[in-house]
Amino acid sequence: MQQQARAIETRAAIIRGAAAAFEQRGYGSTSLAQVSAAAGVTKGALYFHFDSKEALAVAIIDAQHEQSAGAGQLLLEKDVPGLRALISMSYELARQLRDDLIVSAGVRLTIEAANFSTPVSAPYLDWMVTCEEFLRRAITAGDVAPTLDVPAAAAFFTAAFTGVQLVSDVLNGRSDIDQRLTEMWALLLPGLVVSERWDELKNLAADVQRERAAAAALD
Amino acid sequence: MQQQARAIETRAAIIRGAAAAFEQRGYGSTSLAQVSAAAGVTKGALYFHFDSKEALAVAIIDAQHEQSAGAGQLLLEKDVPGLRALISMSYELARQLRDDLIVSAGVRLTIEAANFSTPVSAPYLDWMVTCEEFLRRAITAGDVAPTLDVPAAAAFFTAAFTGVQLVSDVLNGRSDIDQRLTEMWALLLPGLVVSERWDELKNLAADVQRERAAAAALD
Repeated sequence: MQQQARAIETRAAIIRGAAAAFEQRGYGSTSLAQVSAAAGVTKGALYFHFDSKEALAVAIIDAQHEQSAGAGQLLLEKDVPGLRALISMSYELARQLRDDLIVSAGVRLTIEAANFSTPVSAPYLDWMVTCEEFLRRAITAGDVAPTLDVPAAAAFFTAAFTGVQLVSDVLNGRSDIDQRLTEMWALLLPGLVVSERWDELKNLAADVQRERAAAAALD
Repeated sequence: MQQQARAIETRAAIIRGAAAAFEQRGYGSTSLAQVSAAAGVTKGALYFHFDSKEALAVAIIDAQHEQSAGAGQLLLEKDVPGLRALISMSYELARQLRDDLIVSAGVRLTIEAANFSTPVSAPYLDWMVTCEEFLRRAITAGDVAPTLDVPAAAAFFTAAFTGVQLVSDVLNGRSDIDQRLTEMWALLLPGLVVSERWDELKNLAADVQRERAAAAALD
């Protein structure tokens, strides 16, 4: 039992160390020796848990996606109105990207994974499914027109978020990501919200951003 | 003179070979020996032109950006109406990404360049400037409301295009990129076009996509 607990701990330490090393040097330029040094484990322990650098990257992507998808699941379970949940999700993902090394490393690796032996498409497809569910709830609530092409919109929001966080990362280390997301929603809401709900919902993104900032200040 | 011409040719061959090698294996996992093999030049010739792998990547990014930005410049010079130019530009970039190895390698390297010693931000900033000019022309033409936050919209379109082409690349090698762009514009036009021009412009993206396909079929 104790041995098993230690193995789980070592595996987590390797994932944290690898995330730090990949974030610092990029995936392609990081050696497994640098990963074992960053994780504080022997190369033997590293190879016991992961048989290749790609296996390590996939483990980081899985850990990141589990954490990020968990936030989406929580919004679905708490029955947050669809449009509000969609918008909240984007700010929550942005927070994770800023605060959590596993998440920022996982997202970067997902983007760099175009050259992996198996391309990493599951996170994008999962986000599309979650966005579709938020949009269907928004349609049921009467906030969004039932004529919306739900799969197309869900695919676009997933892609747009990917681009917004990436460009914000390159230009200023994601320091302006919340502002950029609020600007994104200001441009997208007119194409989503039905006219009868417009006055009530037109500032929804700015409202969510402000409420989240107020809640974070209380923590 | 002849020696200079040969040097220019060798440099271009190295850039093409490096683009092919980076596209195949990813930047981090490609060695300079693999680049010189792909380019059909000696390692000596390679080092004569480029003193590091990063210098090579930057040269590919520069070549790509020159070509892509040229298409934007052409639309500005030909006085294409702002909104139509903005939309045409997105399809033209998509075509270059599909048809031109230097462009697809350059865009991928730009995205992976977060770990370069000097981050590559110029292409994003250039695109934002071009999009701003298109949007200002659309405002002058009365297609877009003068209340639009032009820098915010230009920054978002640049980021959204980056994400759309990236996700399309991961999921199906960019085979659906034109369709994804048409869906993107369908979601964005309601937030851009003034109500008096809506009937005239609501199908602009689908129209541009169809016109480009017809023109390509004649080539």
